[in-house]
Amino acid sequence: MDLDLAVPGAAAARRDKLAAALGGRRALLFAGQAPPRNYPDAPYPFRASSHFLYFVGLGIERAVLDVQGDEHTLYVEPPAQGDALWHGPTPGLDDLARAAGCPVRPLGELRAEGAATIPAVDLATRSQQQAALGRSPSTPTDADLALADAIIACRLIHDEAAIAGLREAAEGTTAAHLAGMRATRPGRRAFHVRAAMEATMTERGMTPAYGSIVTVHGEVLHDHAHHHLLSDGDLLLADVGAESRGGWAGDVTRTWPTSGSFSATQRAMYEVVLGAQRAALAAVRPGARYRDVHLAAARALTRGLVDLGVFRGDVDELVADGAHALFFPHGVGHLLGLDVHDMEDLGDRAGYAPGRERSPQFGLCYLRMDRDLAPGMAVTIEPGFYQVPAILGDAELTAVAGDRLDRAALGRFADVRGIRIEDDVLVTLDGHEVLTAAIPKTAGDVEACVSG
Amino acid sequence: MDLDLAVPGAAAARRDKLAAALGGRRALLFAGQAPPRNYPDAPYPFRASSHFLYFVGLGIERAVLDVQGDEHTLYVEPPAQGDALWHGPTPGLDDLARAAGCPVRPLGELRAEGAATIPAVDLATRSQQQAALGRSPSTPTDADLALADAIIACRLIHDEAAIAGLREAAEGTTAAHLAGMRATRPGRRAFHVRAAMEATMTERGMTPAYGSIVTVHGEVLHDHAHHHLLSDGDLLLADVGAESRGGWAGDVTRTWPTSGSFSATQRAMYEVVLGAQRAALAAVRPGARYRDVHLAAARALTRGLVDLGVFRGDVDELVADGAHALFFPHGVGHLLGLDVHDMEDLGDRAGYAPGRERSPQFGLCYLRMDRDLAPGMAVTIEPGFYQVPAILGDAELTAVAGDRLDRAALGRFADVRGIRIEDDVLVTLDGHEVLTAAIPKTAGDVEACVSG
Repeated sequence: MDLDLAVPGAAAARRDKLAAALGGRRALLFAGQAPPRNYPDAPYPFRASSHFLYFVGLGIERAVLDVQGDEHTLYVEPPAQGDALWHGPTPGLDDLARAAGCPVRPLGELRAEGAATIPAVDLATRSQQQAALGRSPSTPTDADLALADAIIACRLIHDEAAIAGLREAAEGTTAAHLAGMRATRPGRRAFHVRAAMEATMTERGMTPAYGSIVTVHGEVLHDHAHHHLLSDGDLLLADVGAESRGGWAGDVTRTWPTSGSFSATQRAMYEVVLGAQRAALAAVRPGARYRDVHLAAARALTRGLVDLGVFRGDVDELVADGAHALFFPHGVGHLLGLDVHDMEDLGDRAGYAPGRERSPQFGLCYLRMDRDLAPGMAVTIEPGFYQVPAILGDAELTAVAGDRLDRAALGRFADVRGIRIEDDVLVTLDGHEVLTAAIPKTAGDVEACVSG
Repeated sequence: MDLDLAVPGAAAARRDKLAAALGGRRALLFAGQAPPRNYPDAPYPFRASSHFLYFVGLGIERAVLDVQGDEHTLYVEPPAQGDALWHGPTPGLDDLARAAGCPVRPLGELRAEGAATIPAVDLATRSQQQAALGRSPSTPTDADLALADAIIACRLIHDEAAIAGLREAAEGTTAAHLAGMRATRPGRRAFHVRAAMEATMTERGMTPAYGSIVTVHGEVLHDHAHHHLLSDGDLLLADVGAESRGGWAGDVTRTWPTSGSFSATQRAMYEVVLGAQRAALAAVRPGARYRDVHLAAARALTRGLVDLGVFRGDVDELVADGAHALFFPHGVGHLLGLDVHDMEDLGDRAGYAPGRERSPQFGLCYLRMDRDLAPGMAVTIEPGFYQVPAILGDAELTAVAGDRLDRAALGRFADVRGIRIEDDVLVTLDGHEVLTAAIPKTAGDVEACVSG
């Protein structure tokens, strides 16, 4: 734990806001603990619960934040016997109190009965919650749900310290993508590119914000295998984001030709996806409904596919029928914050505005967010085009397009398995700011970076 | 999951050996599952239970191996709805059966009552075990303990495929240390060196086998902070090991001067630690008791400290009193295999021969292993010298040395905070082989690599 990462002022202001929203009710936020990897002394790297991190500003294993009205107390485990021998000097309660901006007490003094909480994602912390609260945290009470809503209201709109964290993550993510493009050569494996990208994060003390996707099989949406050889003529899709030292996420996808030159068909389809991203970005402003941003991308993509002859017919009808989802099955993006899918542990309660629900339509059903945008929100914008065999070979799914899908025309794009273009976007007072704008994105800029 | 990593012949032979040791009793080995990092869809990278990996040869999330006599069956989850869309084509049961060398059935068909098992390290898999077995796996039965002993007997002596895995890990570990030495410059941070070391692993499709320690504070034995600046005159201690794609661990420590040149005092102390490592290595042969290997290192280190004037008095008496542990508090090493501390989830049952127990003496109490060495065992040999304030400032601990400790002489070595030299060693029929011998180790070789 590096106390230099603390943001005591921001954390205190966030707690005040939370306490006000709770109107005197009491909330406990649990930091969590590192799960074992192959045996208890070899854990995965500790990553604190984002809720705890947001309101404390520091990840402290097994700690608990207690918020009630004006009283905010952080409960921490005292150093264990042998800690000084194995782990060196650890911060004292006073050091922690300064860093967190609130009093710190030994964990043993926590009396938790009657408080609301958020169920931890790790089961060991669920047990800690169960023991502290005297009830199962897995069955939320009304007070727990009210706490979730209060947290969502806080975390949805990023404060200055949060935006600084997102900028830091964007900087690390930018460096990673530049390094990845420069490390790409036919004959290498995807491993090499991933190594170059992740090394730029490690050099900054950062980590990947999620499992990196670096693949010549862009059509496998969550391809976490990296052993594939990069061949001349392949497109490499890299969905890689850095997590800042304070826990803020970057999430960017670029797709580039391994040789440094797009083929004519790859370039044409790349321009279609880029056009879809531009159309979506143009729609990002305060008051815009995020589902409409998604549909703007879907329409632009569909128009491009009509222009290329892959689809026939009316663009709006194709989109209304969900035909675009045959090539763009996922949503245009999601909330971004301390989690790469911010607050996804709270389910659609975070991503969807009250009263809105997921569409049952294939494609739209995967949209992770449907809120009206407001200044201070951060989202990703990430349309794509993929030829997924499990979709295009499924008669039931493709029936929505009927004979409006021209498979002969599609056949000309056999060298385009998958393209996605994704940026991190902050909603501003009068529109938006692309936090990751420094990463090459036009076909020409991408080619120049890979070749240079 | 990459089926190319499968070792069906080796896995089948290991199962036969296990079945024979069990004499017809039935055993279930659970693969485990990836725990969530910050929300369920963002898990840590999956790392299968080493017991499962050993007897199946592949990590398959949530799978269960059933061994009873000649019948070995692997139970796996059928692909989930949407898997083909998000994860691409997944191997079928036939593919898995070929890779594992045994029949494969859907997990839903598993009937587990009455079988022995090993408690999983992750709590989600404990629940899976509880549900399958109808009892808590956390309270081992006599049959569970007999299974643990049978597994220890198998895994303790590495077969050809295991040795090949350890060699692969040693190669990745060697590349990492060479890259780390070459990336070291005063003015960089430890992050940079760690990034260079871990990138060599990622390029090979490998991962760190444990949380890398790359620090100018070698006296903090488990220092996982990497933000420290490398200053001219610092020693950098790097305890970094690669895990092969098949799951085998490397575990090596080198200590090098950030400037490329040891000071006279650093060099003198480095030679003492290297002498202790040589003395320990010289003792590694079939039939040797591992505690005696530890004591050989302790004696050589103590002799070196007497020669440097830090200790006064008789070497054997100092070691019998545990005085060496003031500077070398940990054990000389541990078993090495699929886990970096191999089978440590089974506790001292794995590391200690039946009838042997941990010494209560400070220092010796941290020795993770006390078995008689046999051909095919792999261990680390890793003596060190550290000036740990929590030890040297503790009157009770230092009382064992009394006035035999010369603090004025020790003061001359203020620029040596911590040195450890660690290699991975395979016990052979007539002695041992250092698997990581290609990593620079003499003071001159280390200096040349850092400066080059």
